[in-house]
Amino acid sequence: MRGTSRFHKKRSVKSGLPPGSLVHIGDVSNKSAQISVIGYGTEGITEHHYEQIDQYLLNPCESTFVWVNVEGVHDVELVRILGEKHTFHPLVLEDIVNTVQRPKIEDYGDYLFIVLRMLCPSEDGDFSSEQLSIILGPDYLFTFQEGIAGDVFESVRGRIRGGKGKIRSMGVDYLAYALIDAIVDGYFTVLEGFGERIVDIEEELTQSPDQRFLHRINGMKKEIIYLRKAVWPLREAVSFLERGDSPLLHDTTRLYFRDVYDHTIQVIDTVETYRDLLSGMLDLYLSSISNRTNEVMKFLTVIGTIFMPLTFLVGVYGMNFKHFPELEWQNGYFYLWGLMITVALLMVAYFRKKSWL
Amino acid sequence: MRGTSRFHKKRSVKSGLPPGSLVHIGDVSNKSAQISVIGYGTEGITEHHYEQIDQYLLNPCESTFVWVNVEGVHDVELVRILGEKHTFHPLVLEDIVNTVQRPKIEDYGDYLFIVLRMLCPSEDGDFSSEQLSIILGPDYLFTFQEGIAGDVFESVRGRIRGGKGKIRSMGVDYLAYALIDAIVDGYFTVLEGFGERIVDIEEELTQSPDQRFLHRINGMKKEIIYLRKAVWPLREAVSFLERGDSPLLHDTTRLYFRDVYDHTIQVIDTVETYRDLLSGMLDLYLSSISNRTNEVMKFLTVIGTIFMPLTFLVGVYGMNFKHFPELEWQNGYFYLWGLMITVALLMVAYFRKKSWL
Amino acid sequence: MRGTSRFHKKRSVKSGLPPGSLVHIGDVSNKSAQISVIGYGTEGITEHHYEQIDQYLLNPCESTFVWVNVEGVHDVELVRILGEKHTFHPLVLEDIVNTVQRPKIEDYGDYLFIVLRMLCPSEDGDFSSEQLSIILGPDYLFTFQEGIAGDVFESVRGRIRGGKGKIRSMGVDYLAYALIDAIVDGYFTVLEGFGERIVDIEEELTQSPDQRFLHRINGMKKEIIYLRKAVWPLREAVSFLERGDSPLLHDTTRLYFRDVYDHTIQVIDTVETYRDLLSGMLDLYLSSISNRTNEVMKFLTVIGTIFMPLTFLVGVYGMNFKHFPELEWQNGYFYLWGLMITVALLMVAYFRKKSWL
Amino acid sequence: MRGTSRFHKKRSVKSGLPPGSLVHIGDVSNKSAQISVIGYGTEGITEHHYEQIDQYLLNPCESTFVWVNVEGVHDVELVRILGEKHTFHPLVLEDIVNTVQRPKIEDYGDYLFIVLRMLCPSEDGDFSSEQLSIILGPDYLFTFQEGIAGDVFESVRGRIRGGKGKIRSMGVDYLAYALIDAIVDGYFTVLEGFGERIVDIEEELTQSPDQRFLHRINGMKKEIIYLRKAVWPLREAVSFLERGDSPLLHDTTRLYFRDVYDHTIQVIDTVETYRDLLSGMLDLYLSSISNRTNEVMKFLTVIGTIFMPLTFLVGVYGMNFKHFPELEWQNGYFYLWGLMITVALLMVAYFRKKSWL
Amino acid sequence: MRGTSRFHKKRSVKSGLPPGSLVHIGDVSNKSAQISVIGYGTEGITEHHYEQIDQYLLNPCESTFVWVNVEGVHDVELVRILGEKHTFHPLVLEDIVNTVQRPKIEDYGDYLFIVLRMLCPSEDGDFSSEQLSIILGPDYLFTFQEGIAGDVFESVRGRIRGGKGKIRSMGVDYLAYALIDAIVDGYFTVLEGFGERIVDIEEELTQSPDQRFLHRINGMKKEIIYLRKAVWPLREAVSFLERGDSPLLHDTTRLYFRDVYDHTIQVIDTVETYRDLLSGMLDLYLSSISNRTNEVMKFLTVIGTIFMPLTFLVGVYGMNFKHFPELEWQNGYFYLWGLMITVALLMVAYFRKKSWL
Repeated sequence: MRGTSRFHKKRSVKSGLPPGSLVHIGDVSNKSAQISVIGYGTEGITEHHYEQIDQYLLNPCESTFVWVNVEGVHDVELVRILGEKHTFHPLVLEDIVNTVQRPKIEDYGDYLFIVLRMLCPSEDGDFSSEQLSIILGPDYLFTFQEGIAGDVFESVRGRIRGGKGKIRSMGVDYLAYALIDAIVDGYFTVLEGFGERIVDIEEELTQSPDQRFLHRINGMKKEIIYLRKAVWPLREAVSFLERGDSPLLHDTTRLYFRDVYDHTIQVIDTVETYRDLLSGMLDLYLSSISNRTNEVMKFLTVIGTIFMPLTFLVGVYGMNFKHFPELEWQNGYFYLWGLMITVALLMVAYFRKKSWL
Repeated sequence: MRGTSRFHKKRSVKSGLPPGSLVHIGDVSNKSAQISVIGYGTEGITEHHYEQIDQYLLNPCESTFVWVNVEGVHDVELVRILGEKHTFHPLVLEDIVNTVQRPKIEDYGDYLFIVLRMLCPSEDGDFSSEQLSIILGPDYLFTFQEGIAGDVFESVRGRIRGGKGKIRSMGVDYLAYALIDAIVDGYFTVLEGFGERIVDIEEELTQSPDQRFLHRINGMKKEIIYLRKAVWPLREAVSFLERGDSPLLHDTTRLYFRDVYDHTIQVIDTVETYRDLLSGMLDLYLSSISNRTNEVMKFLTVIGTIFMPLTFLVGVYGMNFKHFPELEWQNGYFYLWGLMITVALLMVAYFRKKSWL
Repeated sequence: MRGTSRFHKKRSVKSGLPPGSLVHIGDVSNKSAQISVIGYGTEGITEHHYEQIDQYLLNPCESTFVWVNVEGVHDVELVRILGEKHTFHPLVLEDIVNTVQRPKIEDYGDYLFIVLRMLCPSEDGDFSSEQLSIILGPDYLFTFQEGIAGDVFESVRGRIRGGKGKIRSMGVDYLAYALIDAIVDGYFTVLEGFGERIVDIEEELTQSPDQRFLHRINGMKKEIIYLRKAVWPLREAVSFLERGDSPLLHDTTRLYFRDVYDHTIQVIDTVETYRDLLSGMLDLYLSSISNRTNEVMKFLTVIGTIFMPLTFLVGVYGMNFKHFPELEWQNGYFYLWGLMITVALLMVAYFRKKSWL
Repeated sequence: MRGTSRFHKKRSVKSGLPPGSLVHIGDVSNKSAQISVIGYGTEGITEHHYEQIDQYLLNPCESTFVWVNVEGVHDVELVRILGEKHTFHPLVLEDIVNTVQRPKIEDYGDYLFIVLRMLCPSEDGDFSSEQLSIILGPDYLFTFQEGIAGDVFESVRGRIRGGKGKIRSMGVDYLAYALIDAIVDGYFTVLEGFGERIVDIEEELTQSPDQRFLHRINGMKKEIIYLRKAVWPLREAVSFLERGDSPLLHDTTRLYFRDVYDHTIQVIDTVETYRDLLSGMLDLYLSSISNRTNEVMKFLTVIGTIFMPLTFLVGVYGMNFKHFPELEWQNGYFYLWGLMITVALLMVAYFRKKSWL
Repeated sequence: MRGTSRFHKKRSVKSGLPPGSLVHIGDVSNKSAQISVIGYGTEGITEHHYEQIDQYLLNPCESTFVWVNVEGVHDVELVRILGEKHTFHPLVLEDIVNTVQRPKIEDYGDYLFIVLRMLCPSEDGDFSSEQLSIILGPDYLFTFQEGIAGDVFESVRGRIRGGKGKIRSMGVDYLAYALIDAIVDGYFTVLEGFGERIVDIEEELTQSPDQRFLHRINGMKKEIIYLRKAVWPLREAVSFLERGDSPLLHDTTRLYFRDVYDHTIQVIDTVETYRDLLSGMLDLYLSSISNRTNEVMKFLTVIGTIFMPLTFLVGVYGMNFKHFPELEWQNGYFYLWGLMITVALLMVAYFRKKSWL
């Protein structure tokens, strides 16, 4: 059931509103949104966390590069004020708070607008999914996370703080790369969990699966459908970044986006492979179920067929005819047992020969 | 049945007529057609409603932008006079009254001709569908609705009347965007109703579905086929608008059409997902039906197989042989019961071990 | 069977002949071929009918535009003489008499060569199919019909004779449009008959279909395969005419070819929809057949299972043990009936609860 | 089995050899290879047959156009010497003797290298397949046939000898066209035989097909797979010739290659249609088998179910209760028969009404 | 099981690391890595083997062309030092040690980076698969093999050592061709083993396959999925080499890459054919299993149905009615046997006529 409910978020509340109307669509949280600002550059790094949009507006960040991360887009007012302050297009803001976007990239000239789905594996083998919107400007990068439950960016923050690698010197397009790479890495983690469940299911298949097996495979097929919807459009978006037509993307970063593109293709490959494996297992399960039932039915029918003539024979000698020679015989009863055993053995032999038994 | 009748509208009445012959194809209404004219601009708004084409011709609208909305294209004469007055191409008029067009866009130089299908959800969970033709000129926009039962544009009219947002200042291409956006939003509403029915069906699937279930899923599959026919060509049409090759489309409006394009892709995505889900449920239903029947048959056959040897045994001691030692035994009858109970228990144990019971 | 024989026309008689060899492939008729010549223009119209090629050669037509219609391409000699007189390429003549061409268009510089399939609905709900070849020159148009049984062009002739519309003033490319439009309109007529048969079949499906049902659906699937083979390549051919790269096609006619193109797409859409509907019905039929059989088997097995223990019980009291207490009881027989009725009722109740009965 | 073995020719013997290594892969023949040289032109024709490569080398042909036909590429030495003499690229020679190439065309500048599969229908309704390699130079054409069992070119030779048509004056590209046309015509012959087998099978299907039927359809499906592998790449190759980018192909010949291209598309169409028909027949067969079995089972179960209560009844009156009123009745036995016949008739009527019988 | 485990290599250990982090992903070996350096040119050949990276660094190779082959990329430190020494891009090194790459080619300007999968058939009919990374520079070529168990390049080394053919004079791009050709040849070897297993399975299919058959076919389907994943992207990579856009690829080598491209297409063709054959066999198996079970059930039910009326008859004459005329008859018992035999024969005849027996 959880698989299906993923596909249903109410969008219709927005019907009839003018474009750019900021209406939050998605799961509602009662925790308040948070803003974290990381300014960095070769000269150093500053970090601030705000819970109010006013605090953010009062403390402009002066670093070479600025990464503003907003968690919790259900705070529509916050997004609207932030958007107006930085003059983002109303359609961008609308898409940020409408968390049922499909992954895409849009070039608005001054900045690129990227929408992704971020998967976080949960402890029960399942995963949660939230929308991440990225606005990539010349020296700033905004990320808007749907939820406030955490993200997969801790390692990126660590690299900025530690100052190792090129991340402080390479510009915000490289930061965008690092974030997207972390997200795609998250896909691998989810897929590995998925792969383990497939191996589990395959093992179970060689034993005696029951009806619930069918529902589990169907549930996994639904999750695969969901993953495909997240991953296929991602490919187009990353392909845009790899081509790097926008002046916001430096040539040196292109190589890295090509790397992410490769990873995305690998994710798609894996998803498609899992789909094929699931289909194969489903077919295998169905035909082995059907085979097993047929075997049982055959066995039972064979048993029944062996007793049919025997029951007929004992019926014969239960008849009450006045003149009934065999009944008079001294050893008639024992002769009959002999006959019946012979008949039974012959039939068993015949069924064995035909390999029905 | 309702699903199928949607695919059958008589087109053959038109065979043999020259091009541009105005023959209404579609459901006939006996209500008269209506014309509503909304003139608007930054200076203000005027609204008129006419039931006669003469009234319309006598009252030219002098506003900056004019939106003429015709409801009920079964009034072929009205369409013809209107078309001649504004010198629309005969093929355009022919397509307007022939309400079995597939969605498309055609560039006639002076104006664009757009055909869409507008879905209105009805109260019983189903939806009605009618053709909407749009003629987009430099400063006028004509919409021709197949039916007169209402539309999904009330919110757009409200925005024009209220003067909020950019709608009064942006030209008729923006109005076209607003109308198409309203239609695509209507698709989402229909799809949400559809999605709820899918969840219902899925719930039912976990309980004990009967034969009608099959017909319901098949009915929904037919509706999905119908939706796909409406949505896929829409994508091409909106893609044309997004590219904006025509001088009738301003650059500032392109961004909005890109937004509609995104929504269209999402609709297609959802339709395809629902198709996959329906297929999955159908397979699941069929195999669980088959499984259940097999289970029942197996159980009954097992029962039968247990009674077979017992019936044979009682048959044995119903025989009338003269010389029949066991029958003479004092406790023969009770011994036999002992034997039969033992046999039955052994067989049940065997079937349990094989997990056939 | 009729569906399949459509796919088999002997082509191999042509093996080994040089290109341009005129060998008729198709159904042979013993009626003689006919030539009709319609000369027309803004100045008026002349019509002649010839049964001999000599008569045709002696009477050149002097009108602005000339439409020569040949019925019955099995008269290979006639086609050859005509072709030589007008210097058509041998490959063109070869394709005209070889009536198993797939729809196509070929640009020979001086003229366009178009091959189509013309469908004529027959009175029994089926349709016949014949090849129509069109040669479109600057001021002449030749049509070669495979059969002589009539065509779908009577309305076009009526429009030329009546002089209504633009047909007399627009040139032969417009005439070609009118003919192709008539053919595509014929497709709609055939498809409507097809659609009605689908509705019939669907109705039948809700009642009790038998084995012939399967053959009927299969027959319709074969006809759909045939229709697809006729329609898909037509799309490419009409698309060529719509693009209008050839100087033989005027800009004003392009709009009309775009209209035909739209209709072709609609035909393809309908064909594909019918294919999907047929597949859906086939699946529905198969699973309902299987369901029904399973229901019957289950019911019968339940009945059998109820009588099994009862038969066992009466067997018990048919035994001849000397010492058999129950048999001595005064009301033993009635007690047994009580027991048996109780057992039967309990089993029925059990099966009801399990909803097996 | 024959269908499958077609897919297996040992290629691995070539592993590890440098490119251009001439290793014959294919069926080995112990007949010696043959060279036939036809020189022709408007001035006349000369024909020579050699069994030794030396004879060929000593007798250069002086005609305008030369067609050298080699039968039996298992004579690797002959191919090598010939290739060196005419300085063909080693990779070309390698592909000639490696007879598991897929159809292709390669432009080597001085000459075109074309690989095709030539199908020869054999007398038992089956067909044999061999590789034909063509090297098309400015004034010479080499053909290398895999086998020495004959070819489909006799009619082409006849046309060269007879000097009819344009074949002597048109150059070797026209000769290449004539040969490829003859090969594609051969495909039609094979496909017609195939089509007849399909009609046979279809007829059989309406009667009572058995298990071998399944194997026959599967065998034909395998042949269709094989044909598709031969035909699809051929399309690309002929498409290259139709475009005619190479100076070796004259404009006048392009029209002819377009004709062959059309034929190739028709072959593909037919192959795909046959595939669909076979799939349809297989489905029809499987479901009618399943239906028939179900019918039989239902009938038998109905019979069993009718006798169940009767057997129970006679069991009742076989009991030995002391006090058993009915047994004492004068006409009890006849009353029972009346009861049993009534029960049987009621059940038959019930089953009839339910149309189970 | 072995088929499935191929798809699962842990990638998630890399999550969160900066790009260019060298983390080995793949099977870990405890043997140490090896470096072999072959310097060659028209002047001669030198060969060295090192087990330590230091030895390699101390002995630069002065030949015209240098081929450095590293076996065992689990020695991450070695790869890092080598990469830094030759200034390869960190992403290249990352991909080398991450052995779950899909085949690809990347142009880094100074060198091309190619990733392939190398298949080595193992003795048990199965095959092992390892990643091969190639770095192709102007006069050097590095190959990095995932494992140290050997490769398919021995014949290439032999050709370099022997100095036969063009390999010493043609540059490293030709060497790259030779290596890729050897790998693709290895694919053919694996596929031939696969083809033999298919023929085996097909033979088995005509006999009496059991449930394990299903698992074997499913296992082979999984291997086909794996092969497709290796081969399809290879096609794109080789296609890049064939187009030869990079200055590192000489025109003379392009022909050879075209040859490899052909072989790759053939491999894909074969893989797809095997997939179709496997699907066909699976369907055939399932329907023959189902057929066979149905036959058995039918036979047994027929037997049961024959004994039903007989058992009923003997039951009749086992009844204890006081007044029972037949029982008094002198030959009643023998008349009954006559009746029963007649009934049995009639039923057998009926079932024979219906061909149920």
